[in-house]
Amino acid sequence: MNMKLLAVAGGKGPADVVIENGKIVNVYTGEIYDGGVAIVDDRIAAVGDVEYCKGASTQVVDAGGMFITPGFIDAHVHPESSDLSIRSFAEAVLKHGTTTIMTDLHEIGVVSGLEGIEAIIEENEITDLNMFFVVPSHVPFSPLLETSGGVFNAEIIKKALEREDAVGISEVVGHYILAGFPDLLDSIDAVKKPGLVAAGHLPDMKGPALNACLAAGVNNDHEALDGPEIVERLRGGCYAMLRESSAARTLADQVKYVVESGVDTTFASIVSDDLHCIDLAHTGHMDHHIKVALEAGLPFIKAIQMVTVNAARSFHMGRTIGGLAPGKRADINLVAGDTAETFEVKATWSAGKKVAENGESLVHYPVAEHKPCVLNTCTLLNPITPDSFKMAAPEGAKKVKVKCMDTLPWIPITQPREVELDVVDGYVQCDVSQDVLYIAQVERYGKNGNIGKAFMGGFHLQSGAIASTVGHDNHNIIVMGTNFEDMAVAVNHLVDIQGGQCFVENGEVVKDIPYPVCGLLSDLSCEELAAEKEELNAALAERGCIIPITCMFLSFICLAALPTLAITDHGFINVLTMQIEDPILGVAE
Amino acid sequence: MNMKLLAVAGGKGPADVVIENGKIVNVYTGEIYDGGVAIVDDRIAAVGDVEYCKGASTQVVDAGGMFITPGFIDAHVHPESSDLSIRSFAEAVLKHGTTTIMTDLHEIGVVSGLEGIEAIIEENEITDLNMFFVVPSHVPFSPLLETSGGVFNAEIIKKALEREDAVGISEVVGHYILAGFPDLLDSIDAVKKPGLVAAGHLPDMKGPALNACLAAGVNNDHEALDGPEIVERLRGGCYAMLRESSAARTLADQVKYVVESGVDTTFASIVSDDLHCIDLAHTGHMDHHIKVALEAGLPFIKAIQMVTVNAARSFHMGRTIGGLAPGKRADINLVAGDTAETFEVKATWSAGKKVAENGESLVHYPVAEHKPCVLNTCTLLNPITPDSFKMAAPEGAKKVKVKCMDTLPWIPITQPREVELDVVDGYVQCDVSQDVLYIAQVERYGKNGNIGKAFMGGFHLQSGAIASTVGHDNHNIIVMGTNFEDMAVAVNHLVDIQGGQCFVENGEVVKDIPYPVCGLLSDLSCEELAAEKEELNAALAERGCIIPITCMFLSFICLAALPTLAITDHGFINVLTMQIEDPILGVAE
Repeated sequence: MNMKLLAVAGGKGPADVVIENGKIVNVYTGEIYDGGVAIVDDRIAAVGDVEYCKGASTQVVDAGGMFITPGFIDAHVHPESSDLSIRSFAEAVLKHGTTTIMTDLHEIGVVSGLEGIEAIIEENEITDLNMFFVVPSHVPFSPLLETSGGVFNAEIIKKALEREDAVGISEVVGHYILAGFPDLLDSIDAVKKPGLVAAGHLPDMKGPALNACLAAGVNNDHEALDGPEIVERLRGGCYAMLRESSAARTLADQVKYVVESGVDTTFASIVSDDLHCIDLAHTGHMDHHIKVALEAGLPFIKAIQMVTVNAARSFHMGRTIGGLAPGKRADINLVAGDTAETFEVKATWSAGKKVAENGESLVHYPVAEHKPCVLNTCTLLNPITPDSFKMAAPEGAKKVKVKCMDTLPWIPITQPREVELDVVDGYVQCDVSQDVLYIAQVERYGKNGNIGKAFMGGFHLQSGAIASTVGHDNHNIIVMGTNFEDMAVAVNHLVDIQGGQCFVENGEVVKDIPYPVCGLLSDLSCEELAAEKEELNAALAERGCIIPITCMFLSFICLAALPTLAITDHGFINVLTMQIEDPILGVAE
Repeated sequence: MNMKLLAVAGGKGPADVVIENGKIVNVYTGEIYDGGVAIVDDRIAAVGDVEYCKGASTQVVDAGGMFITPGFIDAHVHPESSDLSIRSFAEAVLKHGTTTIMTDLHEIGVVSGLEGIEAIIEENEITDLNMFFVVPSHVPFSPLLETSGGVFNAEIIKKALEREDAVGISEVVGHYILAGFPDLLDSIDAVKKPGLVAAGHLPDMKGPALNACLAAGVNNDHEALDGPEIVERLRGGCYAMLRESSAARTLADQVKYVVESGVDTTFASIVSDDLHCIDLAHTGHMDHHIKVALEAGLPFIKAIQMVTVNAARSFHMGRTIGGLAPGKRADINLVAGDTAETFEVKATWSAGKKVAENGESLVHYPVAEHKPCVLNTCTLLNPITPDSFKMAAPEGAKKVKVKCMDTLPWIPITQPREVELDVVDGYVQCDVSQDVLYIAQVERYGKNGNIGKAFMGGFHLQSGAIASTVGHDNHNIIVMGTNFEDMAVAVNHLVDIQGGQCFVENGEVVKDIPYPVCGLLSDLSCEELAAEKEELNAALAERGCIIPITCMFLSFICLAALPTLAITDHGFINVLTMQIEDPILGVAE
């Protein structure tokens, strides 16, 4: 018990900090009224009339009539999607008023297992970002269709749940519940005790299918596509997360529908899920999402509730975070306005420490000394040469029919396209004129040397090869190119630098970005990495590529659960049948 | 995992029960819409459109257009205040639509400790009442001022918290937080992990004092006296419980203020705290409270939220109870109307079992075979005779000045009155003509043989003696009478029958009610016990007593924490100074 906190709250001593002359945004009562906040150590001692907490030693901050809100909570985010190491990520989001995240660090788990996740959590400990751990509910995501580095089974999950910061299990896949995966159902049972939750991953779940998932015990979901799906989840007692991710911008439409329907929004929160570092650098985090929600017609108080108290309650964490009240963690934002045009976070305290002011970070965290388990994660079982990527045609064929997969330009969902391709020296050739490129995924954990191969369209890259060690949900090396030689150089270069992204043309590395941590994360700052990514994207755009965030799209092409086709180290996946297919359909000539 | 539940929810099998043709009261979205509920075993499989859950084996219930609400939750109740054994209590409240209670069984703990509470919880297991255990935060309530049978210290509390049904600690006294009681602060720290809460007892706490209690970690409170105190708690992020108890009817005023203030009511619930069996028999439980709230202007949907989802969330139990949704416990009420005049629970299911219909219970639980630890709890260290109650006057005095305590007629709060009393044979005499009676509390755990003695007014009893083994918060034998002989007979009779209440006149037991369980609880049904209590009260009223629920008032006269005076086995207590006083102030003549 913090006796100093009790003394100050009770009027028997001076607070460390008093923020006065603000407008309290009370997310519990939905009121906004004049007042201030008194802070002792990392906690709030008093809210409203805090004059009595001022003493000679108190630092007094004039809020200048601005709104005082709780720090923002992102209740479903994968920091790895920013490609930033956790300390750079923390610095970047704190600046935008985010003080708490709930995360599974799933991508780290895919590469380095629980040990890797624990290393990253430890790296975060010196930062001011409050992080709760939602244990991955299964790694690999598609055990029969991909190779991963780390593994999460029911036994490891139960061990992870013993951690003090563990608040539940994450990404419980609706289809796996419906299929009755015993390990997953076991893990859900393990989080049925008070204080833990099962966070869902329920795309396309409606009616009876959704009912089954909720009946199994899923407590929240971030995969509702539109407003009606949000309301259906709310009606089902499920915390519904309105999502604005770099790859799925659905918040505005969802808000409009929710507002029009007039339902209670207590069970609704706003999350970012996957946030690209360029978005984070240029548009922000939850502060940006609030503006989107306000623009779409959500009342100010409800928008703030959705990123504070509602988010906290979706993980049963309302006792310690999510509101301005005595005893709560002193996570506080000063906010300039209550409209989409005027809303801006002007200052942020996390656990009582001022971490940002006027858009500038007041903290800078040193680059972590990464643990060995998250370094040097790229191991090839066999050498990679241009031959590694060749696909043999049926004997004697001069031309073959091929099923190429095309990405849509605005969302990395793939569709089949039948094309005819030439055969040279017995191998099927790509055809840039038809926008058919080679794509492959190379297993990188030294486990089996798998290489899956297929044909890709939709990017319109005219020359060279792009490769990345980021590929959901297995993070093997994804490589796409116009020729085998550049593809081999690109893959070998990424292994040389132990992870990252690179573009190779005519055998030369045109641009690379090293990701030393698990092959997923850079130690650069958000602004620095965004600049690097923009340079890489520009190089690709110069070569005709029409997908602006090329590598993020590529990373989803490996996702064996995202319709309708995918490439993993196991091969060319038909997501709908969960079968591996031969992209070569037959002889054309 | 209940695979049958998943199958039915998912549309792959028939539900056990389908309630159709109702109006769903959706406490999550605040909507009311046409639909039904499908039940499998003890759980809800689907809500709304449940046609798909019907099969040949499904029992179909026509709701006849009535409202379908979740079962009601009383998030703060002491079942012992009904004087009913837990099975009789369960039967009585289920009939009124209450399917879950949060309780500390504090009174049982006072007499028989944790072992006794665990015995009562076990007795309840065969009933259909869902009971969560909120561990008493301290027993005895006033360690220096009373003797109790059981003890709860930090060590026992931590042991109790390991129980699966333990959801926190109860009745955390605000004044003890302010005084910094180390054991209590330790226990609060023990419930700071997710899934546990510290339930407060914060009468009179406002401003800095309230802030200190909330800063310490108190999460909910049922002691707000009026509307402003409710709103102050809500603003502080504290779950505020609007109370309608047999001894404190504050709900209507609180509701009016809350409605007028327009605050969010998500953090507000309605509780009964202490419910007398006569009230329970004649007016009901949460169903009655809902009518009071509707009458006071609370919208129907908000009233239902306050006795369901809000109550569940005040103990972080929202994942399993408090709403109609797939996976939730199948606690369901059919309700006739949505106004104070038309509201009536017409049928109740608890965990999928129909337990009441049209005001009649469909269940009858056998009287429990009580465990030895809750039986034979009355042991006198010394024999009780008329002399035991005599108070010696100062030597030679013929008349003395005495501080008599008077109860107010509507609430058992006491006030001092100075009177002059005769002395006979060296002992101070009561004076019925001045409404000054003898009152005493006799220690009944065989520990020290204490007898506290004082003078009582306000009841206006003209003859005989009333005694009871129910006396907050120590449950020693409280006895009040017009003469020493009847008092001795009454106390000895209660010891003979091992607990209960009796009225004695001229050495004869006029009426007694045995309470075999801890000297607190009867095994009669609610209606039977209410009839017995009415008979006892009538006997007292015939002898001039003007307090209708005499024994309940007497039980609070022993409460060393209730202003301004009290009697315990330690003596005559000045509650404001926490000192034992001599009721004899001096010689008058």
